[in-house]
Amino acid sequence: MEVNMHWGKKRWAIAEGYIPSYGHGEGREFVSHETICVLNPSDEEAELSIMIYFSDREPAGPFKEKVGARRTSHIRFNDLSEPEVIPKGTDFSCTLESSIPVIVQHTRLDTRQAESALMTTIAYSE
Amino acid sequence: MEVNMHWGKKRWAIAEGYIPSYGHGEGREFVSHETICVLNPSDEEAELSIMIYFSDREPAGPFKEKVGARRTSHIRFNDLSEPEVIPKGTDFSCTLESSIPVIVQHTRLDTRQAESALMTTIAYSE
Amino acid sequence: MEVNMHWGKKRWAIAEGYIPSYGHGEGREFVSHETICVLNPSDEEAELSIMIYFSDREPAGPFKEKVGARRTSHIRFNDLSEPEVIPKGTDFSCTLESSIPVIVQHTRLDTRQAESALMTTIAYSE
Amino acid sequence: MEVNMHWGKKRWAIAEGYIPSYGHGEGREFVSHETICVLNPSDEEAELSIMIYFSDREPAGPFKEKVGARRTSHIRFNDLSEPEVIPKGTDFSCTLESSIPVIVQHTRLDTRQAESALMTTIAYSE
Repeated sequence: MEVNMHWGKKRWAIAEGYIPSYGHGEGREFVSHETICVLNPSDEEAELSIMIYFSDREPAGPFKEKVGARRTSHIRFNDLSEPEVIPKGTDFSCTLESSIPVIVQHTRLDTRQAESALMTTIAYSE
Repeated sequence: MEVNMHWGKKRWAIAEGYIPSYGHGEGREFVSHETICVLNPSDEEAELSIMIYFSDREPAGPFKEKVGARRTSHIRFNDLSEPEVIPKGTDFSCTLESSIPVIVQHTRLDTRQAESALMTTIAYSE
Repeated sequence: MEVNMHWGKKRWAIAEGYIPSYGHGEGREFVSHETICVLNPSDEEAELSIMIYFSDREPAGPFKEKVGARRTSHIRFNDLSEPEVIPKGTDFSCTLESSIPVIVQHTRLDTRQAESALMTTIAYSE
Repeated sequence: MEVNMHWGKKRWAIAEGYIPSYGHGEGREFVSHETICVLNPSDEEAELSIMIYFSDREPAGPFKEKVGARRTSHIRFNDLSEPEVIPKGTDFSCTLESSIPVIVQHTRLDTRQAESALMTTIAYSE
């Protein structure tokens, strides 16, 4: 079996996005966050272009990210800053386009309350 | 890379639906809810037609919604009222048809207890 | 737009199954459970045949269920009894075949602790 | 209807991986864990080859696993040890290749806090 294959898709979308406006917990590990996890199992670097969509204004972006060959990147929406910061407590959606096929999953850790809540889903691809 | 593409699907379904009959928490943010998140990355407005299916009666709907060009809409089942309100504490499913391709995700926040629980999944498309 | 279409798939699978062996909460609503939600948006009754797979024994089933035309059914694994009861606290997987196309989603409510946990995913279809 | 069919896919990927570095609870049932659930509904044994990808080093693996005919296996990343142990508290992704078609789902139980959190998703297949 070959280990480094070109698999996955180049276009992904996540319809549900929301960064809780506050968190409860110690350390970066327990900060409320919304993550796009991107796996690049290929032998080539992937260049990502992310657009963020809102309910009441024009989209933000493109945000540019890279994922090295045979690497995974867990991108936190909280950390995106260029061209702008994603507002907290606001509904959004995103699309992700990659220069080569990758695999994308979406996860949220919500720590607004004493006990955190988790959710995840494979993103939509085509 | 092009930013505004016609992507997604026109037909979506969510088999699992349930609006908890009560909640625990302050403000709209913490009301138990069941959401359909719809992303319309295209340059055209999307017209949605939602049908709700039950276990013991004929379906309700169609509920009509719109999502603007390059916008996302997080539709709460709790808020649907025309042609009727969705009963709480009842199992349901839904189908969503759109005039143009969109992307749909399904999320529930359950705040019946002191600590909320979260779940999400990409909807079924074809 | 047509409301009652023949859509979905006839073959579905859920790889992750587990009925917690106990629960914490009052009423059927808060009993730990593992559910297959089946939507039948067509105008014909769907006949389901469910097989349950284990890690250390031959599969159980087929379990026979029906979902009426334009109806949804939230089937709890806890409630299956014919040809046998699904043991609690045991890992399992399932396949579901339907006489006509349906849509299937998998959800677990875990109430073993004071605060319940939720998870859901669209099932695998082909 | 035939019960034992060759269905599923041979190539699967999970972009989001993380084994919480500690847990809270009694017994193996409540140890924080990250699981790949693999269903093999066929009449032939499935040979799995799993690769683990990281953000800052070359991939680990292949990890070799088998799933018997008509059996399911809930593989915990925590338990993988050959050729190496997966570090806790580290982001990772994985790919899974099987000698025959199988179905894969990804689940995390996080018990770092008093109340556990759950998440699951169907894996990406092609």
